[in-house]
Amino acid sequence: MIKVGIVGGTGYTGVELLRLLANHPEVSLEVITSRSESGMPVSDLFPNLRGHVNIAFSEPDPDILAQCDVVFFATPHTVAMALVPELIKRNTRVIDLSADFRLKDLAVWEQWYNTQHTCPELFEHAVYGLPELNRDKIKDAQLVAVPGCYPTATELGFLPLLEAGLIDPLHLIADAKTGVSGAGRKAAIPMLMAETSGSFKAYGVSGHRHLPEIREVLSQHCQQEVDLTFIPHLAPMVRGIHATLYGRLTTHDVNLQKVFEERYANEPFVDVMPIGSMPETRSVQGSNICRIAVHQPQNSDTVVVLSVIDNLVKGASGQAIHNMNIMFGLDEKTGINVIAMMP
Amino acid sequence: MIKVGIVGGTGYTGVELLRLLANHPEVSLEVITSRSESGMPVSDLFPNLRGHVNIAFSEPDPDILAQCDVVFFATPHTVAMALVPELIKRNTRVIDLSADFRLKDLAVWEQWYNTQHTCPELFEHAVYGLPELNRDKIKDAQLVAVPGCYPTATELGFLPLLEAGLIDPLHLIADAKTGVSGAGRKAAIPMLMAETSGSFKAYGVSGHRHLPEIREVLSQHCQQEVDLTFIPHLAPMVRGIHATLYGRLTTHDVNLQKVFEERYANEPFVDVMPIGSMPETRSVQGSNICRIAVHQPQNSDTVVVLSVIDNLVKGASGQAIHNMNIMFGLDEKTGINVIAMMP
Amino acid sequence: MIKVGIVGGTGYTGVELLRLLANHPEVSLEVITSRSESGMPVSDLFPNLRGHVNIAFSEPDPDILAQCDVVFFATPHTVAMALVPELIKRNTRVIDLSADFRLKDLAVWEQWYNTQHTCPELFEHAVYGLPELNRDKIKDAQLVAVPGCYPTATELGFLPLLEAGLIDPLHLIADAKTGVSGAGRKAAIPMLMAETSGSFKAYGVSGHRHLPEIREVLSQHCQQEVDLTFIPHLAPMVRGIHATLYGRLTTHDVNLQKVFEERYANEPFVDVMPIGSMPETRSVQGSNICRIAVHQPQNSDTVVVLSVIDNLVKGASGQAIHNMNIMFGLDEKTGINVIAMMP
Amino acid sequence: MIKVGIVGGTGYTGVELLRLLANHPEVSLEVITSRSESGMPVSDLFPNLRGHVNIAFSEPDPDILAQCDVVFFATPHTVAMALVPELIKRNTRVIDLSADFRLKDLAVWEQWYNTQHTCPELFEHAVYGLPELNRDKIKDAQLVAVPGCYPTATELGFLPLLEAGLIDPLHLIADAKTGVSGAGRKAAIPMLMAETSGSFKAYGVSGHRHLPEIREVLSQHCQQEVDLTFIPHLAPMVRGIHATLYGRLTTHDVNLQKVFEERYANEPFVDVMPIGSMPETRSVQGSNICRIAVHQPQNSDTVVVLSVIDNLVKGASGQAIHNMNIMFGLDEKTGINVIAMMP
Repeated sequence: MIKVGIVGGTGYTGVELLRLLANHPEVSLEVITSRSESGMPVSDLFPNLRGHVNIAFSEPDPDILAQCDVVFFATPHTVAMALVPELIKRNTRVIDLSADFRLKDLAVWEQWYNTQHTCPELFEHAVYGLPELNRDKIKDAQLVAVPGCYPTATELGFLPLLEAGLIDPLHLIADAKTGVSGAGRKAAIPMLMAETSGSFKAYGVSGHRHLPEIREVLSQHCQQEVDLTFIPHLAPMVRGIHATLYGRLTTHDVNLQKVFEERYANEPFVDVMPIGSMPETRSVQGSNICRIAVHQPQNSDTVVVLSVIDNLVKGASGQAIHNMNIMFGLDEKTGINVIAMMP
Repeated sequence: MIKVGIVGGTGYTGVELLRLLANHPEVSLEVITSRSESGMPVSDLFPNLRGHVNIAFSEPDPDILAQCDVVFFATPHTVAMALVPELIKRNTRVIDLSADFRLKDLAVWEQWYNTQHTCPELFEHAVYGLPELNRDKIKDAQLVAVPGCYPTATELGFLPLLEAGLIDPLHLIADAKTGVSGAGRKAAIPMLMAETSGSFKAYGVSGHRHLPEIREVLSQHCQQEVDLTFIPHLAPMVRGIHATLYGRLTTHDVNLQKVFEERYANEPFVDVMPIGSMPETRSVQGSNICRIAVHQPQNSDTVVVLSVIDNLVKGASGQAIHNMNIMFGLDEKTGINVIAMMP
Repeated sequence: MIKVGIVGGTGYTGVELLRLLANHPEVSLEVITSRSESGMPVSDLFPNLRGHVNIAFSEPDPDILAQCDVVFFATPHTVAMALVPELIKRNTRVIDLSADFRLKDLAVWEQWYNTQHTCPELFEHAVYGLPELNRDKIKDAQLVAVPGCYPTATELGFLPLLEAGLIDPLHLIADAKTGVSGAGRKAAIPMLMAETSGSFKAYGVSGHRHLPEIREVLSQHCQQEVDLTFIPHLAPMVRGIHATLYGRLTTHDVNLQKVFEERYANEPFVDVMPIGSMPETRSVQGSNICRIAVHQPQNSDTVVVLSVIDNLVKGASGQAIHNMNIMFGLDEKTGINVIAMMP
Repeated sequence: MIKVGIVGGTGYTGVELLRLLANHPEVSLEVITSRSESGMPVSDLFPNLRGHVNIAFSEPDPDILAQCDVVFFATPHTVAMALVPELIKRNTRVIDLSADFRLKDLAVWEQWYNTQHTCPELFEHAVYGLPELNRDKIKDAQLVAVPGCYPTATELGFLPLLEAGLIDPLHLIADAKTGVSGAGRKAAIPMLMAETSGSFKAYGVSGHRHLPEIREVLSQHCQQEVDLTFIPHLAPMVRGIHATLYGRLTTHDVNLQKVFEERYANEPFVDVMPIGSMPETRSVQGSNICRIAVHQPQNSDTVVVLSVIDNLVKGASGQAIHNMNIMFGLDEKTGINVIAMMP
């Protein structure tokens, strides 16, 4: 059994880690921390876990965390970078769901997160935990940075086109829509149901923190400068990301469907849908799948990719466990082969 | 492995059976029928099942169905009663999610369903599949009638009070609220999202078909006449039933919390919540749990029970599989120990 | 033109007052106060008002408010009672949408609101602003206390039955459901969309502050003790209250439909629907109407009344303006004869 | 008073016409037709109209319709073109909310609507009823074709940029999102609440009928070929369109905000929001306003326009009445100066 700890378990990625880990056959959940809720049984906060998770939140204690084989950080940014060095030093592996280790360019990170990074040495060595890109590096990683939710959906949609050199890499457009759980479990007037239900809006148009992440990951991987216009929107639903991706084709002589099918032929959590499909976010609700469809509307030179994930699963906690499975040599699907709930 | 067939798999209880059975370790799904969609791969209709269910819908064929150990009927009423006798004769056990065999009083059934029953002989022998009431009879049953969704939530809420003789049995009130999936996957203007979203209403006030079911089950089990006012409402959500139950206490000298805790102490799928709890439907979303809280507001002589289930799981497909587990001697939780999804 | 001021305009009843008053032909909006948003144009906070309301929030100033003919308080409780005496002294009439002056029994008020009332002398003289009950007193009132949202729907539903002496007054049940806007525009985790969407729950079961209001108003008006079990629920929608009301009939020999139709024959904002109707909350969305239907299911001795309002209009701001119209001798419908929006 | 008739009043644009016309001070509603609901009082179908609209649906009768000054068609396509010639001949003006007269290129219309047009002579003479484009022609029009909902939001967003020659006209992208009321009041499984709530998807990716409309209107007006990729999406809400529009700037030396503000300076129903704004659909809910914001994210050469309307008002019935006001020389705002409802 893999001894697992969770730091910061009171948010939505925390409860989602618990939902999935509680039924993971190779995991023993040792500790879950929360400064604010220390002492409270986890299932008092999240009644869906009654009968499944019987431990209480505790104060974060490095000595206890260091006894785990792996610790997940489901914290706001800047929390992980304060604790991680101590854990790594004591040979506890870390899977960070926050943004602290997602970039490679320190200056860019410090600019967008508007703070100084406190462990730049680990910053460089962290592995970006997108299995479809970095499976081999993940296996031996001590520190994995789980991709953001938007970047996961966007990168998986653009990768086949960029890798094959089929689109102009400097003028990508990602028109992305998220459910409200993406904003986290924090008291804020704009996220009240009375403010968001029945309405749709863009936000972060001038610059969202997932923009530099997408830009860097795609640029590095494709070894050329990639730039995009990234417009996130808030949709009146709880879960799900729908990324509608636009690129200008540099060639017409290509079978786009085949490019995608071949790229993801062996990926357990990417589903390239049949020609003409238009995936709905509910088809991945609660599951770790990314469903993708590629279109060339009206036979124009604009390619359109539709990419959907559950932001809390493939966009966060499920992908984190996928990384854990790879790191510990398990079958990749273990514990996360959950079927989406429809309706 | 238990060989399983499903008749009528294109509705919401059908897809929910598939979601749960696909991951059930003791089940082999042999056949799923649909007249309207015969030939279509199941996962074309329900993309959440892509990669999990690989068979196609077929025409209902008694010879093929009879090769199964058990057949689930997820059909509108009057379909099962036409096919069931043949299957029972050939020793295939049947779990009927429809209303065809839920009552014991044939005249009442024929009045409320406004048609003649075509196999009255089986009608009498069917076992009402509420495990918390009929576990022993279910074990050996050839034909199980899975309770309706409202009756499940309502009966589980009233049973401890009635069994203990604590309330006036003739003036129960059940004010129940359901999500829209309860109306099934049928084209109908009143169930359009534009008609139901953001709105709340009562329906079936003059008489809903679940009323005689609740009345009969509670009366028979408690061996006294039970009558209730049952007002169902449509809430603007997809899943979930919230039954708010009212009874007039005949005694004040009782620990209501203890009555409920003791009644359900050994029930794997009933969760009596702590004093003061107010269960939310999302705490059971996708799971087979019924969560119950009992209150005596303002210390009056009116007891209020709050009972929540997922109408498609504990109120239909999950309870059906629970019955199957009992019928085939499995651990009752096998395959249905799913944790509810929150948020 | 009636010179109008609003104290506390940043909440949902505030914006709703503005929506209705901006098109009211007899009103001149002079001032709207907010400590927190002082200086901000109202339409920056509420973009729906762009082009319709051109003033900014200002600090509350009794001298400026006292120049108005009438001041609305759309504030949390305890704010109005601090300012009202000064305004009344200077002959500015007050319409208070908060709870500060809704009760007549000071001890009960202080117990339920858990604070000392600071102007008990006005407390007694305030008029309870339910036009269907107190039209004559409202005409000359200096201080009107606008009823709570639940009390409005509940009292209008029970009044005809109690006035006619048709039900047992000591065992009423009000099973009420509200949209989330009832909780106000306040940052709070339980009211996030991710917490409330797609879910249904009861709250305040042990005692909601609207309970003593309903109890007192019905008891005083009917000159007999009235008691009820009041269970509020949160429905996943923004607006609307649906009260399902239960009473035990003391006689069978009565035409309930006629009782209701006659009681409200001359009321411009109560719509007694035809026999068999089940009003939906969306049918009153944005309007000042209360729609009511009365049922006697299965011909039992339990009468069921369905009563729906928009909690922000008939349950707050629309009713407040209705009071103003009466106080200033206008046609009662002026400015609030808005048609509900469907879908 | 303008004598008004409505053909096809049982859909969502029909009820919305009624909501607005019932309070229009210059209108007398003479007749509303429906083959399916003939004889039923309008307010039985739409209870929000109880007390406001007192006529019943009747069979369409050209003789009666021809007595009106103007007839609105709120019908599926192909209905209007059969009746309109007779009305025009008899000097009744027509405002058609359907698609029958929206295009100028007959061949394109017949291809996209897959049928033969039955009155090509009127086809050419119909005026495209976008007041911001065609105000002068509308004044004297006998037949106005009200623009589609997507085209309204999209054209208003692109017009200032195209008119000023600021973007590459051949590679526009319109990523548009609609609420479910856009699909109309028709029984269809995909539009059930259980199918659409909590989920987001694209549809019509290969070609939506609003695409040729946008293409033609922009091309003709700007006197150059305009082409776009148009991807509509279904958002889980009832009302509202949010168009996110992308264009490649051909110059950097321009004040985009000023371009928009000047273009719409005198338009009563277009609100150019301040720099940095991100309009929400709820800010126009129930109102005839189009709110627009223009952005140049990260100072790139991609301009992003956010354009929101209520699909049933500015995208249909409100715009239809706006046309009527212009045609009959009224103040343009008469009867449609409704304030959006928030929350």
